[in-house]
Amino acid sequence: MPTTVRDYVQEHAGEFFAALREWLAIPSISGDPAHAGEVRRSAEWLAAWLRRSGFPTVELWETGGLPAVFAEWPADDPAAPAVLVYGHHDVQPVDPLELWETPPFDPTERDGVLLARGASDDKGQVLFHPLALGAHLAASGRSAPAVTVRMLVEGEEESGSANLPALLRANRGRLRPDVVVVSDTGLWDADTPSIVTGMRGAAAVQIDLYGPETDLHSGQFGGAVPNPLHVLADLIAGLHDDAGRVTLPGFYDRVAAVTAAEREMLARLPFDEATWLATANSTATYGENGYSTLERLWARPTAEVNGMWGGYTGPGAKTIVPAEAHAKISFRLVPDQEPAEVADALRAYVERSVPPGIRAEVAGAGLGVRPCVTPLDTPALQAVRRAMERAFGTEVLFTREGGSGPEADLAEILGAPLTYLGVILPDDRIHAPNEKVDMALLLKAAESAAYLWDDLATGP
Amino acid sequence: MPTTVRDYVQEHAGEFFAALREWLAIPSISGDPAHAGEVRRSAEWLAAWLRRSGFPTVELWETGGLPAVFAEWPADDPAAPAVLVYGHHDVQPVDPLELWETPPFDPTERDGVLLARGASDDKGQVLFHPLALGAHLAASGRSAPAVTVRMLVEGEEESGSANLPALLRANRGRLRPDVVVVSDTGLWDADTPSIVTGMRGAAAVQIDLYGPETDLHSGQFGGAVPNPLHVLADLIAGLHDDAGRVTLPGFYDRVAAVTAAEREMLARLPFDEATWLATANSTATYGENGYSTLERLWARPTAEVNGMWGGYTGPGAKTIVPAEAHAKISFRLVPDQEPAEVADALRAYVERSVPPGIRAEVAGAGLGVRPCVTPLDTPALQAVRRAMERAFGTEVLFTREGGSGPEADLAEILGAPLTYLGVILPDDRIHAPNEKVDMALLLKAAESAAYLWDDLATGP
Repeated sequence: MPTTVRDYVQEHAGEFFAALREWLAIPSISGDPAHAGEVRRSAEWLAAWLRRSGFPTVELWETGGLPAVFAEWPADDPAAPAVLVYGHHDVQPVDPLELWETPPFDPTERDGVLLARGASDDKGQVLFHPLALGAHLAASGRSAPAVTVRMLVEGEEESGSANLPALLRANRGRLRPDVVVVSDTGLWDADTPSIVTGMRGAAAVQIDLYGPETDLHSGQFGGAVPNPLHVLADLIAGLHDDAGRVTLPGFYDRVAAVTAAEREMLARLPFDEATWLATANSTATYGENGYSTLERLWARPTAEVNGMWGGYTGPGAKTIVPAEAHAKISFRLVPDQEPAEVADALRAYVERSVPPGIRAEVAGAGLGVRPCVTPLDTPALQAVRRAMERAFGTEVLFTREGGSGPEADLAEILGAPLTYLGVILPDDRIHAPNEKVDMALLLKAAESAAYLWDDLATGP
Repeated sequence: MPTTVRDYVQEHAGEFFAALREWLAIPSISGDPAHAGEVRRSAEWLAAWLRRSGFPTVELWETGGLPAVFAEWPADDPAAPAVLVYGHHDVQPVDPLELWETPPFDPTERDGVLLARGASDDKGQVLFHPLALGAHLAASGRSAPAVTVRMLVEGEEESGSANLPALLRANRGRLRPDVVVVSDTGLWDADTPSIVTGMRGAAAVQIDLYGPETDLHSGQFGGAVPNPLHVLADLIAGLHDDAGRVTLPGFYDRVAAVTAAEREMLARLPFDEATWLATANSTATYGENGYSTLERLWARPTAEVNGMWGGYTGPGAKTIVPAEAHAKISFRLVPDQEPAEVADALRAYVERSVPPGIRAEVAGAGLGVRPCVTPLDTPALQAVRRAMERAFGTEVLFTREGGSGPEADLAEILGAPLTYLGVILPDDRIHAPNEKVDMALLLKAAESAAYLWDDLATGP
């Protein structure tokens, strides 16, 4: 007797969470070289579980660093679309350990949540996919999914995904998706299911200014030689105009405008400024004129000074003209800005701005991530929305994220549209002590994925 | 048979330098509490030497810190002017000791210079005064000087003269000078004898800006909350206009213009920009439009950022909006600016400039020194000039110093004009390893002082 997706998911929930706990007990911290063996053990655990779940092809993919897991379950119909699910099996470090209420690698259930490092970011979100596939097959009576489902679960996302682009390029022929489903994002809140549609990119540079060869006595020399800290302050102050816009020539040339449709969508999110300010530990908003806080965070680029130093910084006064001044600056970028172009524009700005007597160096700090956004009318995005609305029984809205991740590489290298299916909540404490996941939301996500495979195969 | 001043000085040179070496062997480092006993021993040595030189009154004056030496030798004529000689018997620390070619407290003669800590700053310049008095008396056949000579030799100049104002106020009645002769300055160079006519004052403040309570993720929050480092850069960039002038309202209101006479005097100094830049370890000059380098250094006020810090300053990139930003700012002031007024103007500027979401604190860092200048037509200054021209046999020019010292307190509290008689050379390495003094110049200084007492009593 055929079952429904929802019933199947509910009936297999116990088995699902038991497996998840087993996996969460493996401390696969990719940022700590001492845990490399645990990351490998985590990949092997996942590979075994995917095999047991029915994937005909499961492989460990070696990289220059830690291994990824690849799995494939082809559709019967060779003309059916191919979907690539992206996630990661590595986790963040757990310091400070003393702030955890339960041991980070001893998963603990409490009032409908599961507490453990990696519970929501990202093991829970990887593991709902084989559950979803089981439900999809059971409910449809098929022996193979309606679309070809491939999974790529990397082991270095929390340490910068350094080997992912090479892995994608080397395996482009086997991955060749029609759509990529990223399961590493979240919902607006528990009552407002939503879908991420884009991430900001990033570029980072360091400015080093050199003036006098040594610190000088400000009585003997002050007022008659250039002070590198003054020049640095001028450079940074000149980086924004009075409207909060970045002044680098060409900075906005490639920026895609916020569309009326997106602006309207963002306005429908239940954003409360006082709540947001509390989350930001801040007392006032600030930013580019003419844009809301959410637009500033998600759809507009920024230039942010992350650190600045030079001269005497100890107690009391030391009256010197300092020899050096330094600043770290990072940009958040939006489509279609290019990280390298922005870094070059900053370098040119510094070079033409420093006065005689000051030598400037501008170095990239190794961070360059492309922005990405999926247009709201992308069919796959609308399919995810329908699938989630069916699972959640309520309207699903759209969001973006202000941060940066490897998602743009997936779209760029694989040449496929990105959609997102993730259920992290804002208070899930990812990257922090006491990470948790809402167990009911993981089951809703599995249900959503099961509906999605049907929708992608046949349309609404 | 009466002698000449010059002959007397030459005949007593051996005795003078033997005494100076004895005194220089006492490590009277006022900045090091472990050397307090040595500073007292230095005061006692000087008191004994002044008694032996004939001063009828010699006293150790206790302060809240280290002792000063007071001496008085009255003129026969009670209507004769009274001169107060100011100097100090404490010295700078000697670190780094390994850079000294000879031990700092084992005075060593070499090619006409005497090497030791304190040789020029300031023991040599204090000790030429009793030699000068001997010459003055021997050459004139008097039993008492033509003017009443008082000396005040403090023991805390190198550690900030914290107790000097109170000492001056408490003893105003006994010091009551008609003119103060400061012997703690130098010459333009060995071939260009000159007289200092002023010192810049100073004020120092620290700006502390507080934004979000914690560092924030620049992806999650960047572009929508104020960044304290941006605000700090704006504040510092806004402190000067494009002409290099300080923008604080009222900053120049009290600034005395450089007179035509002084401008002409400064222009006669053999200033070579390339040489000066080499001394400044710099490759270009910079400063307030419309003024020469010497005017910028000596006759114009400055606002200088001495240190600045905030956010992430380690290796690589860390994409945060920092919680705090800090800067140390010091001003060099010229007559008739008031340190407290300038600090208040900075505070008001910061308070009206910071945007909502940023909290600012402005704290004085304990440094407030008044500027002082002696007009070129001051009779006592012209008397010093005549005396030095007689001793040196060449024209004597006028300079100023860009640094700050306790001199303004002497003029302010004692209500008398300041003149300067000092022969430190630019390469005497005061405050540095291998401090030295030119022995012939000390004797010229003694000769100058001997002539000066006559001139002050009777005029040219």
